[in-house]
Amino acid sequence: MYINHIAHYIPAVEVPNSYFAAINGVSDDWIVSRTGIHKRSKVSEGENTNTLAVSAALEGLKNLPYPVEDIDLIVGATYTPYDTVVTLAHAVQHAIGVPHIPVVSISSACSSFINAMEIVEGYFAMNKATKTLVITAEQNTAYANETDPKAGHLWGDAAAALFVSKERNSDHDILVTDIFTAGAATVGKGIEGVMLKPFDGGIIMPNGRDVFIHACEYMPLATKTVLERNGYTLDDLTYLVPHQANNRISQNVAKTLNLTPQQTISNIQYLGNTGCAGAAIGLSEYQDKFKKGDKIVVTVFGGGYSYGAMLLEK
Amino acid sequence: MYINHIAHYIPAVEVPNSYFAAINGVSDDWIVSRTGIHKRSKVSEGENTNTLAVSAALEGLKNLPYPVEDIDLIVGATYTPYDTVVTLAHAVQHAIGVPHIPVVSISSACSSFINAMEIVEGYFAMNKATKTLVITAEQNTAYANETDPKAGHLWGDAAAALFVSKERNSDHDILVTDIFTAGAATVGKGIEGVMLKPFDGGIIMPNGRDVFIHACEYMPLATKTVLERNGYTLDDLTYLVPHQANNRISQNVAKTLNLTPQQTISNIQYLGNTGCAGAAIGLSEYQDKFKKGDKIVVTVFGGGYSYGAMLLEK
Repeated sequence: MYINHIAHYIPAVEVPNSYFAAINGVSDDWIVSRTGIHKRSKVSEGENTNTLAVSAALEGLKNLPYPVEDIDLIVGATYTPYDTVVTLAHAVQHAIGVPHIPVVSISSACSSFINAMEIVEGYFAMNKATKTLVITAEQNTAYANETDPKAGHLWGDAAAALFVSKERNSDHDILVTDIFTAGAATVGKGIEGVMLKPFDGGIIMPNGRDVFIHACEYMPLATKTVLERNGYTLDDLTYLVPHQANNRISQNVAKTLNLTPQQTISNIQYLGNTGCAGAAIGLSEYQDKFKKGDKIVVTVFGGGYSYGAMLLEK
Repeated sequence: MYINHIAHYIPAVEVPNSYFAAINGVSDDWIVSRTGIHKRSKVSEGENTNTLAVSAALEGLKNLPYPVEDIDLIVGATYTPYDTVVTLAHAVQHAIGVPHIPVVSISSACSSFINAMEIVEGYFAMNKATKTLVITAEQNTAYANETDPKAGHLWGDAAAALFVSKERNSDHDILVTDIFTAGAATVGKGIEGVMLKPFDGGIIMPNGRDVFIHACEYMPLATKTVLERNGYTLDDLTYLVPHQANNRISQNVAKTLNLTPQQTISNIQYLGNTGCAGAAIGLSEYQDKFKKGDKIVVTVFGGGYSYGAMLLEK
């Protein structure tokens, strides 16, 4: 399958580290040294996960190389739902006006982007879809407690939209060579590392160290697995797009894989942790830099736990 | 693909109509005549969507005709999440102890059961799974406002677990002949018929009449579509399992399709509307009654809007 075009939407409000210094007493230096985050994106009044998703989709339509009516599947991904009934995928279906196609939203926490792509792969394998709109969107600030001195400063809001076809559509396409996903609920403090209970405290990260350790273990493992099972080595890799949770995790993963900072795509510095949207936005931001022959791995790790990797070839 | 075994879990607390008479002034007769509901199931203290899911899964393991280690995919379905990061599918993975397999939870509102089955069909088509645990679970009472005189009395809590294999496992299996799903966000008041905004009011149904009308239109349409595209007519149908939203809707659908009450499986009378779990529990309750040659259609309609149908053959 092929990624035809990627778009993203970043809400306009920027929250600097000084905001958290004022409410939690955590300094800019402290936040930067521990997370790499300088500022994060935040919704304006009236925006939410569904509107972010719609904004990213409409942005993508501006450069869609085929009629919107060709889209025959919508898969939404979020762990910060605005509405669990009228999901982000339904909001997008309404906005783009394509009736009577399969529409579903999914969560496997911060890994959801790759899970959504794997579900699309399944629809293509069944011949039940040919052109899919994948939307990743998070309004973390709806569920995060900004006064939490441990994690309140981490979160950003944003969305990405990917148009994915079963057959090659143009020379601009990025080939999706392979995807794999896994739940790791049995690993470490998997079911209590990060939690988001909508009616019981929102996002909490009571075991951040356990998350850090396993993210640094599983993202390199997933990257190597997806390369090796396709006959490649780390030397063949052009870019890595890790889940944008914490720049220290990304740098640790890059070091384990002997990658340079230039090879490691990062946007957490100015967006914060935008959940399952972060890596997709990274792809969107870099899509015009990818050159023919480039091999890109997106690798994710999230609460639950969950992890996965996707190998792309330009 | 084949359903090998189905289990369900109903929490112990039963809430009679008299409870709502006391708080909302709606009489037993009024509720029964409008919904068919006499009582509904409710969680006890400490239970939630994740524990309901685990309870149904563990109940199913008692009669699982193969080792639990054979399970290589878990798909959870709910629109009433207890935790959107450690989803019900992750909670079940932890409980059954099968590591490093794809794990994801999905929502397409009350239609989610059929969407989950279609996603499983995709993993089988990709040869990425062979034996799947599908869990549908709802704790509606976590998000419903019981003092809402229009809809507070509708909701029940429950879960079902389905073990589904790509190849036939035994003569007890039920063949899944065909599945189709569709979002209908562009239809009627699709994006405002039913909503569940976790941090903004929970479940509301501001356009119940629009939901009723479209449920009565789309479930018969979906049933006929899935029969006809497999060379069958309504005369070939043995049982219909409609989404358990309201017994008046179920009876209306049955009448449109010329089905007898005996052909129309219903549990809303004693469970209430258990969301995406209701139809799956209906299958679980009837699985031992199905005879060789029986043809069963499960059809769903939900918020979003969304709808679908699944043809089963014993």
